[in-house]
Amino acid sequence: MVSQLHASLTYARERREQYLQSLFELLRIPSISNQPEHAADVRRAARWLVDYLRQLGCTRVESFSTVGNPIVYGEWLGAGADSPTILIYGHYDVQPAGSEEHWQSSPFQPEVRGQNIYGRGASDDKGQLFAALAAVDACLKANKRLPLNVKFVLEGEEEQASPNIGRFIERYRQMLASDFAFVADYAMVSEQSEAIIYGFRGIIYFEIQVQGADNDLHSGVFGGAVENPFNVLVSLLSQLWIPETGQIAIPGFYDRIQQVDDRERRLISSSPLEALIRKQSPSEAWSVGEIGFTMAERATVRPTLDIHGVRGGYIGPGQQTIIPGAATVKLSMRLVPDQDPHEIAHALESYLRSLAPPTVQLDFRLLEAAPPVIVDYQGPIFEVVSIAFERSFGAVPVFMRSGGTLPVVRELKESLALPVVVTGFGLPDDNWHAPNEKLRLASFYKGLEMIIHLLFLAGSL
Amino acid sequence: MVSQLHASLTYARERREQYLQSLFELLRIPSISNQPEHAADVRRAARWLVDYLRQLGCTRVESFSTVGNPIVYGEWLGAGADSPTILIYGHYDVQPAGSEEHWQSSPFQPEVRGQNIYGRGASDDKGQLFAALAAVDACLKANKRLPLNVKFVLEGEEEQASPNIGRFIERYRQMLASDFAFVADYAMVSEQSEAIIYGFRGIIYFEIQVQGADNDLHSGVFGGAVENPFNVLVSLLSQLWIPETGQIAIPGFYDRIQQVDDRERRLISSSPLEALIRKQSPSEAWSVGEIGFTMAERATVRPTLDIHGVRGGYIGPGQQTIIPGAATVKLSMRLVPDQDPHEIAHALESYLRSLAPPTVQLDFRLLEAAPPVIVDYQGPIFEVVSIAFERSFGAVPVFMRSGGTLPVVRELKESLALPVVVTGFGLPDDNWHAPNEKLRLASFYKGLEMIIHLLFLAGSL
Repeated sequence: MVSQLHASLTYARERREQYLQSLFELLRIPSISNQPEHAADVRRAARWLVDYLRQLGCTRVESFSTVGNPIVYGEWLGAGADSPTILIYGHYDVQPAGSEEHWQSSPFQPEVRGQNIYGRGASDDKGQLFAALAAVDACLKANKRLPLNVKFVLEGEEEQASPNIGRFIERYRQMLASDFAFVADYAMVSEQSEAIIYGFRGIIYFEIQVQGADNDLHSGVFGGAVENPFNVLVSLLSQLWIPETGQIAIPGFYDRIQQVDDRERRLISSSPLEALIRKQSPSEAWSVGEIGFTMAERATVRPTLDIHGVRGGYIGPGQQTIIPGAATVKLSMRLVPDQDPHEIAHALESYLRSLAPPTVQLDFRLLEAAPPVIVDYQGPIFEVVSIAFERSFGAVPVFMRSGGTLPVVRELKESLALPVVVTGFGLPDDNWHAPNEKLRLASFYKGLEMIIHLLFLAGSL
Repeated sequence: MVSQLHASLTYARERREQYLQSLFELLRIPSISNQPEHAADVRRAARWLVDYLRQLGCTRVESFSTVGNPIVYGEWLGAGADSPTILIYGHYDVQPAGSEEHWQSSPFQPEVRGQNIYGRGASDDKGQLFAALAAVDACLKANKRLPLNVKFVLEGEEEQASPNIGRFIERYRQMLASDFAFVADYAMVSEQSEAIIYGFRGIIYFEIQVQGADNDLHSGVFGGAVENPFNVLVSLLSQLWIPETGQIAIPGFYDRIQQVDDRERRLISSSPLEALIRKQSPSEAWSVGEIGFTMAERATVRPTLDIHGVRGGYIGPGQQTIIPGAATVKLSMRLVPDQDPHEIAHALESYLRSLAPPTVQLDFRLLEAAPPVIVDYQGPIFEVVSIAFERSFGAVPVFMRSGGTLPVVRELKESLALPVVVTGFGLPDDNWHAPNEKLRLASFYKGLEMIIHLLFLAGSL
């Protein structure tokens, strides 16, 4: 087995440039799942993966239709029923690029600049997903076999909070049956510190419209006598917080929240996360939020509410003195165990409706809802991942909870009853969801080798 | 004189179609003063007016440069030093058209549809300005002379709150010396009820930026631990009002406000304005604002604060979970005598700075500032305008204050010590500053005749 491991590593090293070029092909496809005009690109990325899984040697490859985007499945079960099976998850959809003027190079024309691969999806998640494909490819090409069975599940709606992955996993439980799941869709804490993520916050994302008059009105004629939906909106939104405590003011919001015990608070305070958040923030004064919690706790184990933008009215140059007919806010809340997304969504809606004056109409659109999750990180697969990390990156990973949302984790845990290892090779400053997304070139190659180590270590479990 | 009057009216009636076509020429020029890309169009409109004033028979026509847009001046002083002189003001700049999709016909391709002329500027103010040009043209062409001296002052920055008209009037006081000023840049209360406006609110218009991090950040990584400028913005803005009273919460805001006496309150309550605002509003519940005042009072003699739009963040389709780096609000306040715009601007800035947390930077840009004004509406010119209205429209106008801002009124009153008659032929539903701006075709023709009557009546004062 040692010679097969070395043969795989050698094969992968010799083909670094070739793997990079394949990744670039995938990065060039603007598979933005939350912009309808890119629906064809999303499907093109799915087809590209089907082709790649076939050529790397998967014995069964299928693209499963959903009411949303296809889920690409590939398997190699040649290790036999006595060997363990690893389920590898990744997502091939990406966030919108935003305004191209903020990008140094075009978001869908990937390039290596300095130490990094730049392009939308380089780190989230195409670069990491493709490292897993390349690792399996190298093992299969070098040895004609793998030390364990592999099942790939590659979805195209993660950036929309995975509305269809739950039903897919539920429906294909037998096909997906495995011993453990591996999800490389996350970032290391720093170049020196890898992380395994054992908890995720949930999310609800709303678009809320405050509707006043049918038309915009002239503030010189009506100002003071008719309701301004923007004036109402800021009043409503400001009542979502209790200024004194930094807490969220929605009645019942904190009722189901699991308190974090002292052991876990020590784990969080000993993690590099606090330092990381401070480093990414302009100044100490930047710290903000719920009283009684550290920055790292606020960002991971406590809920939050963020306004993302407000549409409507006049935002062009100069001045236009209108009373806008409507104002629409986009906002989301990150939820923690055991908050229920639909219960909280209902509480938010009821609360705002109770505050709204009779002079406006409120319209709520729930764009996404995903529950929070915690996984039990005891067990041999977690040890094996730690060793694989040590062998490729040179350090043992820390265990921590994420402030983000990864709905598939809960589905894998609940429907398939699997231990789920969530980790990744990205860095916190990889600009996920922002301009100039990047992945360290070294992380791409080390990540690939880490997965090769993992396949061999897990094969003997 | 009666025969000259009739000759003028007859001349104007026979040339209605020709005047309409000339107005269309002017309406086709997109002279949007607050969009720099239309600077050349604004100058083109000024040149068009210079040409028109020359051909109608003005003996002196000049375009005066300012640091902003040119002010077009034309005079005919052939009535002699013993005859009175009327100064006629209008503005040739227009508001932006906004989104063309909301227009039934293209904003700068004017057309007659049903009873109305549609196009940006049809009512505010090109249609009304041009009615005055046509009235003078008809008198001069029919009789080779006018019953009084006329001076036209046509500016191109009214929609930017006239930043340069004050200096112009001050500097050319001698050239502009007159006996009364006539400003047709307003609307009737209804088809049955004309109005003379004796007071205007002032305005300050701000763009305020709340700056957080240098970049947008991912709410799944930083949410809860770093400041969100939108969250701060809604908190700051919500504190601009006292919810219980509907008053504005800025310290000192009401200190200089003149109380309206019972006589004026009776005048307001007997005017059709209250009914007008209710008619334009979706329902009774629409009523909103400062406690203790009627809707008509709130809209004219009391100050107000309106948010016009908020820029920044993500407002595209679907969801993007960013903590935006900055949020920028556009807002304005309408002020009443004797509030001072710069004093109030300073108070607003101080108040918001005192409320802002140290986690953000505030940046204030004052885009416009104009003081409120009241004119004394006793005197023969006001009687003469009333009679002219009765002869053309069939009813005597009411006297009222406006909720809007017309900086030139204060300048004419203060610098030239003139009685200033502000009136107009527009209608409240003419969609000023909004899509589908219109002017009733009948109002255009009746307004033209009203000015002919006025010229003859004022000539004998």
